[in-house]
Amino acid sequence: MTESEFDIIRHYFTDRQSRRADVVAGIGDDAALLHVAPGSELVVCMDTLVAGVHFPESTTAAAIGHKALAVNLSDLAAMGAEPAWATLSLTLPASHPDWLKAFADAFFALADSHGVQLVGGDITRGPLAVTVQAHGFVPAGQALRRRGARPGDRVCVTGTLGDAGLALHEGVSVPASLQARLDFPQPRIDAGLALRGYASAAIDISDGLLADLGHLLEHDGLGAALQVDALPRSDAFLAGLQPLGTEAEVLFYELPLSAGDDYELCFTIPEKRHNEAERRLAEIACDCTVIGVIEELSGIRCYRDDGERYHPVSSGYRHFNEAG
Amino acid sequence: MTESEFDIIRHYFTDRQSRRADVVAGIGDDAALLHVAPGSELVVCMDTLVAGVHFPESTTAAAIGHKALAVNLSDLAAMGAEPAWATLSLTLPASHPDWLKAFADAFFALADSHGVQLVGGDITRGPLAVTVQAHGFVPAGQALRRRGARPGDRVCVTGTLGDAGLALHEGVSVPASLQARLDFPQPRIDAGLALRGYASAAIDISDGLLADLGHLLEHDGLGAALQVDALPRSDAFLAGLQPLGTEAEVLFYELPLSAGDDYELCFTIPEKRHNEAERRLAEIACDCTVIGVIEELSGIRCYRDDGERYHPVSSGYRHFNEAG
Repeated sequence: MTESEFDIIRHYFTDRQSRRADVVAGIGDDAALLHVAPGSELVVCMDTLVAGVHFPESTTAAAIGHKALAVNLSDLAAMGAEPAWATLSLTLPASHPDWLKAFADAFFALADSHGVQLVGGDITRGPLAVTVQAHGFVPAGQALRRRGARPGDRVCVTGTLGDAGLALHEGVSVPASLQARLDFPQPRIDAGLALRGYASAAIDISDGLLADLGHLLEHDGLGAALQVDALPRSDAFLAGLQPLGTEAEVLFYELPLSAGDDYELCFTIPEKRHNEAERRLAEIACDCTVIGVIEELSGIRCYRDDGERYHPVSSGYRHFNEAG
Repeated sequence: MTESEFDIIRHYFTDRQSRRADVVAGIGDDAALLHVAPGSELVVCMDTLVAGVHFPESTTAAAIGHKALAVNLSDLAAMGAEPAWATLSLTLPASHPDWLKAFADAFFALADSHGVQLVGGDITRGPLAVTVQAHGFVPAGQALRRRGARPGDRVCVTGTLGDAGLALHEGVSVPASLQARLDFPQPRIDAGLALRGYASAAIDISDGLLADLGHLLEHDGLGAALQVDALPRSDAFLAGLQPLGTEAEVLFYELPLSAGDDYELCFTIPEKRHNEAERRLAEIACDCTVIGVIEELSGIRCYRDDGERYHPVSSGYRHFNEAG
């Protein structure tokens, strides 16, 4: 602990910034001064990751730096927003240069790839935790919202589900590709932008499909029928299940339905716009799977290919209800 | 722990919101949707308070709820910004309704008094910590900045200094008024607004006068001469020193110079505008004291009334250098 808070900020965070034209003043004053273009709405979200709660204590600094920003960019993606700025509050038990360098390198690699400038924040001493706020823009009135789904709309998800959940599952020998899904989730910014004007509602899957789709549905008092055999599963996920014997049969459904941390988008599309939306996602090489349909009757009903009901064991991650 | 994260958010935070017309969508989606009026710059700051670091473990929930927002509004005040929105990340070891109610009551009391709407955030489980981001507006180009002071400018502070520091000082029997300065700092929003167009530079005093004035000076490579007998001290502060004997002589200077947590504004005013600025502050019943003058020579030099140099013992709070 030889560096002061101010030196840490300067060394690892301030001096390496790329600059956006809409940042009038970034780090280095009491607050950042920012320009929002007329006609744009500002989109703002904030998420905190706490060691031992949101990531295992063994998580690398690089994974923490990436993920803290990624989970927020994922929220912007779910709104169809274009990312612009971030602020970072980093609480650290001690100041280790190697750790800070790895954290900052990963944070800025993701930020740079999405044109995001870090404009402020705070470094404090305490138990390891990271809070990031992300800011983005949407043309006024064009944000994707959780509300807006209608009966008959297709329920879709991007990418594959359950990968991060399997990486977290005890006793699993985790292949690198699943560990990367857990540690370095890729926010679906491009998909969110592509879905503006097509999706009737959208949310990102951070707490698990059932929980997050539930949030989407509750806004309009609707329900959904899901085809649980149709849930998109990666080859690595299927291969990872193989050695698990009878448990694999449960996890095959439960992880894609209920495990968090995948950071895919779940969205609804009116039937007549579905082909067009799928084409737009294909143009940006984003896989999209129809997994169900919106229904009038509230609640989520799961069905197997043979038409039998499937009754999920759990329904998503809740910080204050479960062991976590 | 009977309430889920979502119920907590709803019960203590979402359902009591006052509404601003510029909030298109607040809590309840993946992100907030906000409108920034053309011609305004967005002012954004973020501060984290960690139990045991930024406040004693014994601090009441009300004090934590107030202070977490107040320290951020103080940053907005230092920019001359009008507050608008806040986001809140609350990390809690457990969910106790009494604690949450007291925290939320104090948070919203301060928010309401400044027209601030809570537009988003996060509640997570973990060691007690609170991160708040505050958002405000200034007319484009009119923000108060840390840079901008010129040699000859008067150095001024609002209110009194050292009160919170004395409340934190071990062995002091703390009168209620000093404890309130520590627990319920009042951000100088009105003073910041009044100083737009008058102050050449401004900063809020969170880490101690010497440290924060130092930040202001370093932007322009300037220095200052301070009159340490002229530092504004409250009656409660002077009374609190009385029983401390010889230590009081040291604390009389050291606390106003180096103790943090007062959240007054330190600003510079060109000599010819000083009377007018003081009159504007008097109109809003804000005390203002000239404590020194900006000089070409970098560094801060302290003088007693008799013209002798005073050499401060410490120079401000640094999280990673000192025991805290």
